[in-house]
Amino acid sequence: MDATNETDDAGGTRAAIMDATYDALRKHGYADLTIQRIADEFDKSKSLLYYHYESKDDLLVEFLDYGLERFAEQVAIDPEAEPDEQLRTFLDSLVPESLAEDRHEFHVAFIEMRSQAPFSEPYHEQFTKSDAFIRDTLAEIIEDGIERGVFREVDPMEKAELLVTITTGAMVRRVTTDVGDGMAAVRRAVDDYIESELLVAE
Amino acid sequence: MDATNETDDAGGTRAAIMDATYDALRKHGYADLTIQRIADEFDKSKSLLYYHYESKDDLLVEFLDYGLERFAEQVAIDPEAEPDEQLRTFLDSLVPESLAEDRHEFHVAFIEMRSQAPFSEPYHEQFTKSDAFIRDTLAEIIEDGIERGVFREVDPMEKAELLVTITTGAMVRRVTTDVGDGMAAVRRAVDDYIESELLVAE
Repeated sequence: MDATNETDDAGGTRAAIMDATYDALRKHGYADLTIQRIADEFDKSKSLLYYHYESKDDLLVEFLDYGLERFAEQVAIDPEAEPDEQLRTFLDSLVPESLAEDRHEFHVAFIEMRSQAPFSEPYHEQFTKSDAFIRDTLAEIIEDGIERGVFREVDPMEKAELLVTITTGAMVRRVTTDVGDGMAAVRRAVDDYIESELLVAE
Repeated sequence: MDATNETDDAGGTRAAIMDATYDALRKHGYADLTIQRIADEFDKSKSLLYYHYESKDDLLVEFLDYGLERFAEQVAIDPEAEPDEQLRTFLDSLVPESLAEDRHEFHVAFIEMRSQAPFSEPYHEQFTKSDAFIRDTLAEIIEDGIERGVFREVDPMEKAELLVTITTGAMVRRVTTDVGDGMAAVRRAVDDYIESELLVAE
């Protein structure tokens, strides 16, 4: 086995562990999750799991980090698109109009994990990191829009802080209340916001 | 004992139970809370607690409802104030610039309870109710501002949905991340929003 294959195998194993974690989280939620339940979703040697992770929370913090990496890869912003279009596409990926059942189950577990952050430094760090990633991505799009003369001379970081707060609130409201038409209203209000607060008047 | 005194006593006992619940929640958080721990904070007969509430979640749902009632009483909007001032005062009460330690501890427990809503119909109903109260209060202020010619002809419910989403997101981000200057930035961005999206241009 050469070095490349070794890395591939390690990457493949990590991806398989992360997939098993996703499936177990969806099925059992955070509170009832155990390493054994993750192992039950895992095709390869179970001992690998116990070897790599001391606790379920160790594994879940890595899972959140892996999820953030994947998200960052997937949302690669199209630099050719107009800045307001880039912003809408990015916000759509965070606050979709509706959620498929498996994504809904995952969001439920995500909010449960987030509620543990005040009690756990690794979770706290991880959610700080994911919030910062989203905020910085939004700020970059806004900054680029200002440079291109499409957006007004606003404070990019301030507007980005507001938008990341909206995406967080939307995710929480969606899974914890009967939000009904509320999510569609939030999206319309965000579109109005981009138009009236960011875009240079025609 | 006449009927009035009986009602007073019942009200006093309920308030004392709710105070004890607040103190126990702050100290232990949601997950480690037990009826016994609430009883430990309670001066009156402990058996009263066990008599009135079958489970900790029964008690906590009533506690959330009681908190919403108190909040509704306390934030009585000053009808003499300008609509934008009413809006800022109401939003200040939901997203204060900083939180005293006891309020921070309570917000932590509040987010933990909120994360349980997907698994518990009574919590789900209660958070739907509190979101609706905040949204409707915001919508009324906006509607009144439109009637008074101070706010533009916006859709009050749509803007209210956005604002309640911002308050939810701010509360969650504050206790689950190192939000740093982010909270001040969110407040500035909300002020800008009221100015540019709601107020009629001078």
